[in-house]
Amino acid sequence: MKLGTVIYRGAHRLAAPLDAETVDLLPDLMGISAQNMLSLTENWSIAGENVKDAVGPAEPVPINEGQRAPPIPQPMKIACIALNNGANKDRIIKGPNHPAGFIKPSSSLVRHGQPIRLRTASGRAHPEPDLAIIIGTGGAGISVGGAYDHVFGYTTINDLTAPLMRAEDTFHDRAIHPKESNPFEIEYLNSWVSYPGRYKRTDTFEPIGPWIATRNTVSDQHDLIVRRSHRDKVVPEDSTAKLAFEVSDVVNFKSSYMTLEMGDIILMDTALKKAGSDGLAVQDVDLTSLGGPIEVTISGIGTLANPVEVRT
Amino acid sequence: MKLGTVIYRGAHRLAAPLDAETVDLLPDLMGISAQNMLSLTENWSIAGENVKDAVGPAEPVPINEGQRAPPIPQPMKIACIALNNGANKDRIIKGPNHPAGFIKPSSSLVRHGQPIRLRTASGRAHPEPDLAIIIGTGGAGISVGGAYDHVFGYTTINDLTAPLMRAEDTFHDRAIHPKESNPFEIEYLNSWVSYPGRYKRTDTFEPIGPWIATRNTVSDQHDLIVRRSHRDKVVPEDSTAKLAFEVSDVVNFKSSYMTLEMGDIILMDTALKKAGSDGLAVQDVDLTSLGGPIEVTISGIGTLANPVEVRT
Repeated sequence: MKLGTVIYRGAHRLAAPLDAETVDLLPDLMGISAQNMLSLTENWSIAGENVKDAVGPAEPVPINEGQRAPPIPQPMKIACIALNNGANKDRIIKGPNHPAGFIKPSSSLVRHGQPIRLRTASGRAHPEPDLAIIIGTGGAGISVGGAYDHVFGYTTINDLTAPLMRAEDTFHDRAIHPKESNPFEIEYLNSWVSYPGRYKRTDTFEPIGPWIATRNTVSDQHDLIVRRSHRDKVVPEDSTAKLAFEVSDVVNFKSSYMTLEMGDIILMDTALKKAGSDGLAVQDVDLTSLGGPIEVTISGIGTLANPVEVRT
Repeated sequence: MKLGTVIYRGAHRLAAPLDAETVDLLPDLMGISAQNMLSLTENWSIAGENVKDAVGPAEPVPINEGQRAPPIPQPMKIACIALNNGANKDRIIKGPNHPAGFIKPSSSLVRHGQPIRLRTASGRAHPEPDLAIIIGTGGAGISVGGAYDHVFGYTTINDLTAPLMRAEDTFHDRAIHPKESNPFEIEYLNSWVSYPGRYKRTDTFEPIGPWIATRNTVSDQHDLIVRRSHRDKVVPEDSTAKLAFEVSDVVNFKSSYMTLEMGDIILMDTALKKAGSDGLAVQDVDLTSLGGPIEVTISGIGTLANPVEVRT
C-alpha cells in the first residue's frame, strides 16, 4: 500500500491516497499516533496489518494543494550514496569498494507540487531522480540477509545538484592524510574537496514523494524504471537494475558505522541515461535556464512533479 | 545560565546544573514542555526570564552517570564549518570566500562521559575541539546585524576525525563542473572528493556538552580559550579569536541558502595550536593508539570529557 502525510486541520496526519485528489485518513492505532510517520515506520512490522485493515472503509477526504506534505516531514537523516549508478563506472578513476556518500538536512525537503527555488547567480541546476529507501525499525550492525527487515518502503526523490556552487565551495588544500607506509602517521596531501554544502543542501533542493510504497508492494526494487520528464520530454529513462550496490548492501554497510533510525531516508543514486539510448543525460537539463516543471516517475512507486521558480 | 537535558524517570527532562552531580529540574513553563529542548530554544526570547526565575529555589536532584544526555539529544541538523581557524590559512591553496562545510547526523552524538568507540582497522582518530552555536528561533535570510537574535547559546563539541577512513572513501573521478568560459555549460574535471561520510559521521564521533551556556552569559564568543587535554596533558590550547568567519557571518551566510531551525547546531571549526606555542597540534593525538580519556574545555562554557574504547 501507499502511505504519506497530509496537513489536516492544521496538523500533520497520516494518510493513504485513494486517488490524485482524495485520501483516507489513518486513525490512531495500537498506540501509534496518527500524526507521526516516524513512529509508524518503526512499528510497521507489528502494526502493518491493522493499518491495512483500517484503510478503505472510511470516507474519502478531498485534499487541496496546500494540504500536501513530504511523506516524512522531518526525518532524522537523509543519506545519499554517491556514484552508485553502474553507468558512472567510467567516471570513477579510483573509489572505495563500499557505498560512500554524504547526508542532507530535512530543511532541504519540499513536497510534491511545491516549487523548486533557484537563483540565476547560483548557475545551472540539474535534477537527479533517485530511488529512496525509507528505514522502518532502526538498528546498527544490520546483516545483508536481515537488511530488508529494516526497510519500511520506497519513495521518489529528485536530488537537485548545482555544479557552480560545488566549484565555488571547493577547497584546494593540503589535507591531513594517513601515511601510505604507516597509517598511524600522517602526511599532508594536495587535495580538492568540494564539501556537499550549498550545491546539495540548499532549501527546496530535495523534492520528495508524494507517497511511500511499502516494501511488500514493490516486487523487485532492482528492476524499476526511473523516468524523468522535463516539460513532458523524457530525459532520461534508466533502471534501478544498474545500481552497483544493492539496497541490502547499502543498509548493511551504512549500519556498520552509523546507527540507522526509524524514518531515515537513503538515496540509492541517480538515474543517468539508459545505455545505448538516445536523448539527453541527467546533467543536460539546466532548470535555472529552462525552468520547470520537472517530473520523476518510478514504476510502481509514483510520480513526483515540481514547478521551478527562478530569481536573480 | 547553563541548561541541558537529563534522563529523569525514563524520559528526557530539561535541567540546569547546580554542581557536577546535581541539577535543578525545569518545570513546564508558558506552554513549553519541560522535556523538549528544541521548543525551549525556539521560545527563549519570550520564556527566558521565567526560566531563570524558576531555577534556584527548587531542591537539587542528584544525577548519576546514566542520567546524563546530550544537551539537545536530537537536533535537526549539525552543520560544520570547515577550515575556519585562521591558522589553517597556510593549508588553503584556494578556497571559497564564505563559510563552507558539511553536516553530521544526530546519531553521531554522545554525551559527556560516554565512551568514544574506535576500531583499530579504521586507523588513527584525532579529537577536534569546537565552539558550537545553538540556534534559538530559526529563520532564513538572517542579516549579520540580526544574527545574535537567533543564537540561543554555545556548547562544547569534540568533532572526531579519522583520516584513514577519509582516504579510503575518496573518489578520484571525472566530476561535472561548470565551464570556466560559460558557467551554464558543463565540462568534466579530474576531481578528488572525500565525502564527509564515515570519517566524520560514525557513531560516537560527536561528543557534546555537558551544558549549553546561554548567549547572555558569554561576554565575548570570539575571546574564549579552547583547551584540549589528553590524559591531563594540554594539546593544544587555542582561542576563538582566531576564527576567520565570526558567528554572525556564519549565521548570515548559512541562513542565506538553508533555513536554520530551533536547536540546530553549528560548529565553528576546531582549535589547532596556539601560534608560537610549543607542544602537539590537534592532529598529533591519535586516540586509536593512545586511548583516552580526552577532555575539551572552553572558558566560560564547560568541560567535556570522554573515555575511549578501542576494538579491532
